[in-house]
This record gives sequence, structure tokens and C-alpha cells, in this order.
Amino acid sequence: MSAELIYLDNAATSWPKPAAVVRAMAECLENEAGNPGRSGHRLSLAAGRRVWAVRQAVAELFGAPDPLRVIFTHNGTMAVNLALGGLLSPGDRVVCTGMEHNAVIRPLRDLEELGIEVVIAPCDSEGRLDLEAFRRVVEAAPTRMVALNHASNVTGTICPVAEAAAIAHRAGALVLVDAAQSAGSVPIDMGAMGIDLLAFTGHKGLLGPTGTGGLILGERVNAAEMKPLVRGGTGSRSAMERQPPDLPDRFEAGTVNFVGIAGLGAGIQALAELGGPEEIGRRERQLARQLWEGLSEIPGVRLYGPADFSQRVAVVSFTVEGRTVSEVGGRLDEEFGILARVGLHCAPVAHRTLGTFPQGTVRLSPGPFNTPEQIARAVAAVRRLAEGA
Amino acid sequence: MSAELIYLDNAATSWPKPAAVVRAMAECLENEAGNPGRSGHRLSLAAGRRVWAVRQAVAELFGAPDPLRVIFTHNGTMAVNLALGGLLSPGDRVVCTGMEHNAVIRPLRDLEELGIEVVIAPCDSEGRLDLEAFRRVVEAAPTRMVALNHASNVTGTICPVAEAAAIAHRAGALVLVDAAQSAGSVPIDMGAMGIDLLAFTGHKGLLGPTGTGGLILGERVNAAEMKPLVRGGTGSRSAMERQPPDLPDRFEAGTVNFVGIAGLGAGIQALAELGGPEEIGRRERQLARQLWEGLSEIPGVRLYGPADFSQRVAVVSFTVEGRTVSEVGGRLDEEFGILARVGLHCAPVAHRTLGTFPQGTVRLSPGPFNTPEQIARAVAAVRRLAEGA
Repeated sequence: MSAELIYLDNAATSWPKPAAVVRAMAECLENEAGNPGRSGHRLSLAAGRRVWAVRQAVAELFGAPDPLRVIFTHNGTMAVNLALGGLLSPGDRVVCTGMEHNAVIRPLRDLEELGIEVVIAPCDSEGRLDLEAFRRVVEAAPTRMVALNHASNVTGTICPVAEAAAIAHRAGALVLVDAAQSAGSVPIDMGAMGIDLLAFTGHKGLLGPTGTGGLILGERVNAAEMKPLVRGGTGSRSAMERQPPDLPDRFEAGTVNFVGIAGLGAGIQALAELGGPEEIGRRERQLARQLWEGLSEIPGVRLYGPADFSQRVAVVSFTVEGRTVSEVGGRLDEEFGILARVGLHCAPVAHRTLGTFPQGTVRLSPGPFNTPEQIARAVAAVRRLAEGA
Repeated sequence: MSAELIYLDNAATSWPKPAAVVRAMAECLENEAGNPGRSGHRLSLAAGRRVWAVRQAVAELFGAPDPLRVIFTHNGTMAVNLALGGLLSPGDRVVCTGMEHNAVIRPLRDLEELGIEVVIAPCDSEGRLDLEAFRRVVEAAPTRMVALNHASNVTGTICPVAEAAAIAHRAGALVLVDAAQSAGSVPIDMGAMGIDLLAFTGHKGLLGPTGTGGLILGERVNAAEMKPLVRGGTGSRSAMERQPPDLPDRFEAGTVNFVGIAGLGAGIQALAELGGPEEIGRRERQLARQLWEGLSEIPGVRLYGPADFSQRVAVVSFTVEGRTVSEVGGRLDEEFGILARVGLHCAPVAHRTLGTFPQGTVRLSPGPFNTPEQIARAVAAVRRLAEGA
């Protein structure tokens, strides 16, 4: 065994990060660390310009209507909470899918207590949304919002967002997409896909640091009627004792993480230099297919999710007969230096859909910096474990 | 004029940062970037250990009862929102002071609409809390919480927290302290001072990066009854579709900013190496006194806040007769390379108390890396502006 680590946990956080990410953060800390939008001096303005440039890059990457409608948050979960809590009121109905992450399910379960109806549209045992069943659920009663998991963090299954959004819009619902596992690996165009609210994280496919993410508001979203999640100083309209209506300030109270945002900007630029989401997705999918095909030949290994790789991102979940997922994950790390994630991956609803609740799965998630050689070694390692070596 | 920048805006964000902060963040991104508390592999565990070590350092710095009661947030504002929104319910009464920042006032104004009574206890024209009036206000009706601005971001005026907390506790109220401007420059001991909820930011006096901050829960706070601000995946009790009760997970949904937290840890360590809050406060106060005394000799300059420097942190607000604050701030930057903040500093309530609403003030806030020579140059610059040069 080589001492080289094989990192296959990019669905938890991408690693390694492009060197430019660290450089941009260091540069920001050293040369631009005035508080953006607060003071008017040159360091504050430099930080403000940097944040604005990244806002523009994010808007461009996702086809947002306006950089001002890009709201930076602490992480993708906070972005989802802002969308759900900001727009749903007692009496409203929301439809999500059977593949949601706890980032969507847990806030929804709390909103249920306030009198918001939550309906889960079924997915099949490979995590695929049944569009006909989805249509029936959405049309069964007036629906304020649908929440769609763009790509499952358990099986990688991609949701047909454009088709589901068309159904939702015909029923008058807003479309929230949780792009935590897709942003950076799947091209996203809010306008073309009919996405009204796009929640993303910065530290996964966008190759940026933690402490970054955001919610993008499409044109259908009336920002003035949307409740902020956090209220406080915005550096704007400081005389007001209420949250101002201006975007993005209304939803960005307190100092934004401009150091992290500088890193996110470098991550997004590195993404473009690597060929962009389509090319990265193609390469990652190739690695995942190699992994899938290799694992599928090992007796006792069971794989989850669709075998058709055009329907998934590079997340491969499996179990090994007669071995707990913890044992497999632990031995992959200790004996082979292969870094996996095991368990429920914060997505109990998805595991119920897949039939893997409550034990969960072992998950391997290649990223843009993995190689076919690493995948071959991962397959060989699982084979040794499965064969009882 | 020298080309050297004189940064006197540490109350907005401290600058420069200790070199160790950048190093720690780079090291974390390069060697520990597994997602803490999510996966069980070595990089994830390394990140988890780092976050735990910083949680311990924060707990120790502020005399927290338990590192598990240190909740990391995006910034100080989010921490204040978590405390207010998490513990106040319709029918409750909350008392704050006449020196609050919009981080406290804006969420309170929104809570008012839900039926929470908000009362502002008066401060004098130098920003000092009138303890006798505070007692009368607190005792006038059952009060669930008092919110105290520890040190004003406008005048630096320090609130007598221990005395106010004793009054609040006798009345059965919880004590929330907004330490955004004091943490790092004023010793804080939650137990000794009677602080039940301490909100802090990482990027000011703690010398860390943006995207960090937190809320510390004292022993009187029943965490199980406190509502989270954000719900979602915690990496713990993943089978639950509700936010788990465990600390700190209950209040830290989604990936924590472990890269930023690594930087915060380095900032707190640098703080200790510089002598700790008491020594830093002493040095900063000396610079602020030099600034105050120099400015007070300039005809047309008016200073705000108490002349007694034992009652303040190093924040000096002033106005120049016949000059707008924007003109003074702009010229200090452009002609002298002196970086100030002007206006209302997100604290309209404080400016009403001081009589400087709505024009605001020019604010100079020395930090641990400023020198007496820089202060002398700042005084000379203001003199030239005031004398019409």
C-alpha cells in the first residue's frame, strides 16, 4: 500500500482546493481587509469591489438575473433556510422530493408545526423523481413552493429540474433548487431551467472555502415580501431601525465573509480554467463510472442509484454483504488511505427511498483532481475487504 | 505626507491580521480539509480536532461553562439573532440600552411585530447606562431578557455589565451581552460578570477572519427550549428529521466554517501572545487617550463619549465644525492615508442618545498594531483639515 491518501469524499467537501483559493484569501487578508460596504476608505472599497466581482461571477455561472440578487450566506443550509422561512407562511403548502437532505427536511419539519403543509413526492428506489406522481401531488392542492434536490448526495441521482419546474410553474408554485451537490459539476441556468431560488454551497463543487454559499433570487421572487433570516447592520440606510428593502443588504446583515468570498471567487475561476461544470462533470462521471463498473464485479457488493450515468453526478454509494458500513469505511481509511464517508449522509429521507435506512451506505465521491489510477486502487481495496482479506 | 497607510478602523474590522491567521487557514485548507463531524476519516477528524481546540480556546477566553456551549455562527449579528429569536416568545418583554447597534435593534424591531415588548433603557449623552433608570425599567414589569451593548462602537463607552446583570437577575431576566466591540480588548468572564448569552465576532478584537463569531450559552440558558435559527444536517443523529437536542449541533446546522475557525484560533493565540485582552486594552486605550487629548486641543473639533478612559475602549468619535463627516473621512483617506469610518456606524439609536443623529460622526479606532507616531500623524491631519488647510 502506498502512503498516498486517496480522497474520495468530495461530496462532503472538495479537496484539495486549487492553490489560487488559498492565495486569494491570503491576499484579501493582507491587502483588502477593510469591511466592505461599511467604511468609505480605500481598503473597505477594495474589499467591496472584490465581493462585487465574486457576486458577478456567481450570477454569471448560474444565469442569475442580476448580481444584486445573489445573497451570500454562511453555507448552503442557511440559504435553504432563508428561502423556506422567508417565503412560506402558515396555510402554505410545499412539495419536496423523496431524496431531500436534512438541510431541506429539518427546516420543513419545523415549518409544519407553524401550519405549513409539507408533502414529499415519491422517488423510485434509484432516487429518480416520478414526474407523473410529482405532477399529481403538486396539482392536488394550491402549492406555494416546490423544493427539489438537484443531485442526491447519496446516489448522485439528478432530478429533472426543468421538467419539474414547468409542472410547478403551471401550478403557480415557486421552484427552490438545492444545488449543494450539483453546482460546479452540472451546468445550471436559472432562467432556462425555471429555477426561482437557487441554494448553493461554496466549499464543494465550486472549490471554495467553508463559510461561503448563497441563495439566488429569480425574477419571480418578490424580495420585499420575503422575510430575512438575520436582521442587523447592513452599512446601508443606517438610520432605519428596520431591515432595509435593498438587495442584497436586506438578507446580508452583519459583516459578510469577504475573506471566504475572495476564496470562492478563486474557486469559481479555477473551475472555469478546468473547463467549467460541463467538462468537470464529464470527467468526474467517467471516474464514477469506472468505480461503479469495478465495484459491480465484486461479489457481495451492492450498488445504489441509477446505472445510467447521464442521470447522475459522481457520487457512488454501496454496501458490502456481511460488513457494516463503519467497518468498511474505517478499514478503507486505516489500511488503504482511502477516504470515504459512511452512514446516512444527513439524508434519512433519501435512505428510506433507497431502502438503506437506517444502516446507510459507504459513499465514494470523486472530484476534479482524482485520477483513474486512484479509482482502480479504491476498487481493489473494496475487493480485498469484500473477499475477507 | 508618507505613503504609509494608517489604519484606524479596527472597530469595523481589525487590520492587519497576525501572520499566523493566514498561515493557520492555509494549513487547514491544505491538510485538514475534511468536513468535521461528517465523515470518520483522518482529514475529517483532523478538522474536527481543530474546531474543538478553538471551541476550547473561546470557552477559556470568556469563562464559558463548557466548550459544548460555544456555538459558532457566521458573524456577531447572527449570534445576536440566534439569542433573541431563540429565546423570546410573544408576550415576553426585553430591555436593551440606548447605545445598541442595529445588530440588536433591527431584530428587536421585528420581534416587536410578533408581540414582544421592547423597552430601551436610557443612557446619558456620553453613552453611559443610567443604572438606576435601568433598574426601574427592568423592575417595572416581568422581563425575560436584557440586551447590553458591552462597548459602544460609536463612543467606546463601556457598559457596567456586572452591575446591570445583577439587577437583571434579581428581576429574573436573562442577560445577553453584545461583545462585538469589547471581546479581545476588555477581559470578559461570563460567570463573574453574570452573562447568560455572550455574542462575539471573530474578525475584530479577536484578530481572526470574517465568517466567524459565535454565541456562548451560560448555564442558566435551557438550550433544549431555545429555538435554532437554522435547521439542517449536523452530522449527528442523522436519522432524525428534527433538529437534534445535542450541543453545539442543535445550533450549528450545515458545514461550519472550519477554515475560518482555524484562523480564529490563531487570532486568539496571537491575542494571548500580545498579552491578552487586559494588556491589549491598556495599550489601545493609551493610543485612544493620546488621540482624544490631541483632538481636544483643535479648535472646532467636538469629541463624544466619556473623557474618563477607564470607562471606554479605543473608539474615538468626533465632528469638525463646518465640515461634513464625509468630507473629513474622505480627505483623511485621500490626502493623509488615514483610514476612518464616518456616519452612523449602523447604530442610529446610539447617535440619538449622543445627539449626533442623523449626521453621525468621524470615528477613529486604534488597534493593537497602531503606534503613537501614527496617532500623532492622525491628530496633525485633523488639525490641518479643521484649520482649513
